[in-house]
Amino acid sequence: MPRIVMKFGGTSMAGIERIRAVAERVKREAEAGNQVAVVVSAMAGETDRLVQLCKEAAALYDPREYDVVVASGEQVTSGLLAITLQGMGLNAKSYMGWQLPIRASGHSAALIENIDVDVLERVFDEQGIAVIPGFQGVTSEGAVATLGRGGSDTSAVALAAAMKADRCDIYTDVDGVYTTDPRIVPHARKLDMVTYEEMLELASVGAKVLQTRSVGLAMRYNMPLTVLSSFEDKPGTMIVGEDFALGHIEESDMERNVITGIAHDKNEAMVTLTGLPDKAGTVAAIFAPLAEANINVDMIVQSVPRAGEPSVLTFTVPTASLAHSVAELNKVKSAIGFDEILTDTNVVKVSAVGVGMRSNAGIAAKMFQTLAERGINILAITTSEIKVSVLIPEEYTELAVRVLHTAYGLDAEQELTQ
Amino acid sequence: MPRIVMKFGGTSMAGIERIRAVAERVKREAEAGNQVAVVVSAMAGETDRLVQLCKEAAALYDPREYDVVVASGEQVTSGLLAITLQGMGLNAKSYMGWQLPIRASGHSAALIENIDVDVLERVFDEQGIAVIPGFQGVTSEGAVATLGRGGSDTSAVALAAAMKADRCDIYTDVDGVYTTDPRIVPHARKLDMVTYEEMLELASVGAKVLQTRSVGLAMRYNMPLTVLSSFEDKPGTMIVGEDFALGHIEESDMERNVITGIAHDKNEAMVTLTGLPDKAGTVAAIFAPLAEANINVDMIVQSVPRAGEPSVLTFTVPTASLAHSVAELNKVKSAIGFDEILTDTNVVKVSAVGVGMRSNAGIAAKMFQTLAERGINILAITTSEIKVSVLIPEEYTELAVRVLHTAYGLDAEQELTQ
Repeated sequence: MPRIVMKFGGTSMAGIERIRAVAERVKREAEAGNQVAVVVSAMAGETDRLVQLCKEAAALYDPREYDVVVASGEQVTSGLLAITLQGMGLNAKSYMGWQLPIRASGHSAALIENIDVDVLERVFDEQGIAVIPGFQGVTSEGAVATLGRGGSDTSAVALAAAMKADRCDIYTDVDGVYTTDPRIVPHARKLDMVTYEEMLELASVGAKVLQTRSVGLAMRYNMPLTVLSSFEDKPGTMIVGEDFALGHIEESDMERNVITGIAHDKNEAMVTLTGLPDKAGTVAAIFAPLAEANINVDMIVQSVPRAGEPSVLTFTVPTASLAHSVAELNKVKSAIGFDEILTDTNVVKVSAVGVGMRSNAGIAAKMFQTLAERGINILAITTSEIKVSVLIPEEYTELAVRVLHTAYGLDAEQELTQ
Repeated sequence: MPRIVMKFGGTSMAGIERIRAVAERVKREAEAGNQVAVVVSAMAGETDRLVQLCKEAAALYDPREYDVVVASGEQVTSGLLAITLQGMGLNAKSYMGWQLPIRASGHSAALIENIDVDVLERVFDEQGIAVIPGFQGVTSEGAVATLGRGGSDTSAVALAAAMKADRCDIYTDVDGVYTTDPRIVPHARKLDMVTYEEMLELASVGAKVLQTRSVGLAMRYNMPLTVLSSFEDKPGTMIVGEDFALGHIEESDMERNVITGIAHDKNEAMVTLTGLPDKAGTVAAIFAPLAEANINVDMIVQSVPRAGEPSVLTFTVPTASLAHSVAELNKVKSAIGFDEILTDTNVVKVSAVGVGMRSNAGIAAKMFQTLAERGINILAITTSEIKVSVLIPEEYTELAVRVLHTAYGLDAEQELTQ
């Protein structure tokens, strides 16, 4: 008998009418012969409200008690969904994180350590449906734990892995993963399928459909994920392993694009150090204190000076870490002996992502050429096996995303108007 | 070291500002050298909101899932109070019903079976404060249980008994128990002290300060209760055993009234059966089906007929059970052979309550005379060791309460205006 996990986000659970629609979907899957576990988020806005209450109660709130408060949102929706399913004649029960239990590592942004599936096996033996609050678990001391914002996606994938589900369906308020942000490119196409690696690159650079952690976990357990809409009945986007994706492509989609999507991320700030002395160990001396301060340095460009002359070093850090970075650099400024620290937050990182680029030369070249044709200046470049990213001035964001989307053949075919 | 339980109701917990005021009171008791356990209600209105969600989810909601949903209100306030206390430098932690555990008998209106105090003893050993959500426990199957509306009072008293507390203080939105409803009698006096028995009579006939169940529990464990205001700093009303009360009276209050208070209850409906045959077993045949249907018959008056002639039987039932009562009576009507079932919901039960009446003749006589002087017709009478109740037409409610309050010497002395 196939086993599935269905996960519903906050907008899908916002109010009894929507919970009823969720229950209808669950009923359909159960009646189609699946063993179903449902993972639910709190009603949209509820977690924010509870977090705000904790902040008002004390500026430095205790993570243990914070977890007690914020875990209540999912407790409410899981009970309400169980009641609604029962009202439709289904045998449904809720199980809190401490009841299964879902063991978690600590408080406030805990990791899931393991999930006991004995209770679930019993539920499935009795043709039951288990409703499980996302975002929560229990510590080894028996205290309520939460997994960090967006943690319900991770709950769903971890549960799917623990119960050896055939798939994990993530119902949300968008209908899938797109080739790029449809607000920028109206002709963006919904992707039928992406690989875990592509999704990780797309998520970390802007496509906020799924918690990144949950995608990493799905990849580790090779658990097929599907992102789809709670509100419409149409296929979503499957997120799968590369083998599966390649098999699928050969069968159905010979012309799959080399590039899967274009992402952009405005959350990067550029730091430039001038007048760096040309001696061994200078670059290491700059990045060591940043690494110690847990600041994630991304793109790095060093001008090549003439021997013995000072050079210029440019790199990016998350905008939220910029002030901290400058403070750390000022501490080592005199020891290293550079001239100035220049910063710029009006930059954006634009990335082309796709597993197909491994076997295709010219992907980066096409990007540079396309941008150059529009007179867009590239400030820094970084590449990985499945991604090429450039840093450009922020004002060119939309233009760059649009021209790259077209250049890589991602635009949806437009209907001809007569 | 003295041990106390402090319980705060929903209006006391409604919002962070009020929770901060609660925390100040807790801090004061802790700093005065008490070991403190705090029991909290959900924020005012929250339980109603959650119950409403359950009702909307399914008309016949499952009590197990109902409990999961509604228990969340107290989970939130207990976490928030713990955070607030920590913010004031106190060592406070919350413990849910399942964490202590507080064992409960079932769902939705569960009874507390026992409370494990090992965790609490450890908290007190470490100079800690335990914050415990009221209204909840855990079943033998490990499911969340709730105790029925108003159950937080019962949680507090049960906890006080289990941890052998010296007293249990119930903070609420009124400042104590009054001789009667101050909305009817502006000169009603706040009582310094009432006995458990008096409180039970006053509560069950209208003075809704404390859940009746919690008073019964306090009586069983001889746990001194104090009802006092969360919002004002003044002594409340102690609810104690009769021995304690009598000792206290001798010391401080030689002129304590024989009557403690006047209560009224509009929740009674009068049923009159006419033309009852004069034969053995008729009355038993009428009350047996009502007892089987769990309908609580209260005041009973039978007219004394001449031998062999039909009689009239009048009694009261809770208004909520009236339709059910009539249906049951109609089933046995032809078998018993009475003429008519007359009903009247425009009646009120007015009671004079006081342990002192045991040793005082003339209490009932004074009531009948006082009402007769105002032309108030008495429809039925019932008495217990510490209570005299009469059923009268509802339109006389305020008049009857006022004249009895005066007749029994309960009016507060009025300040003279110059």
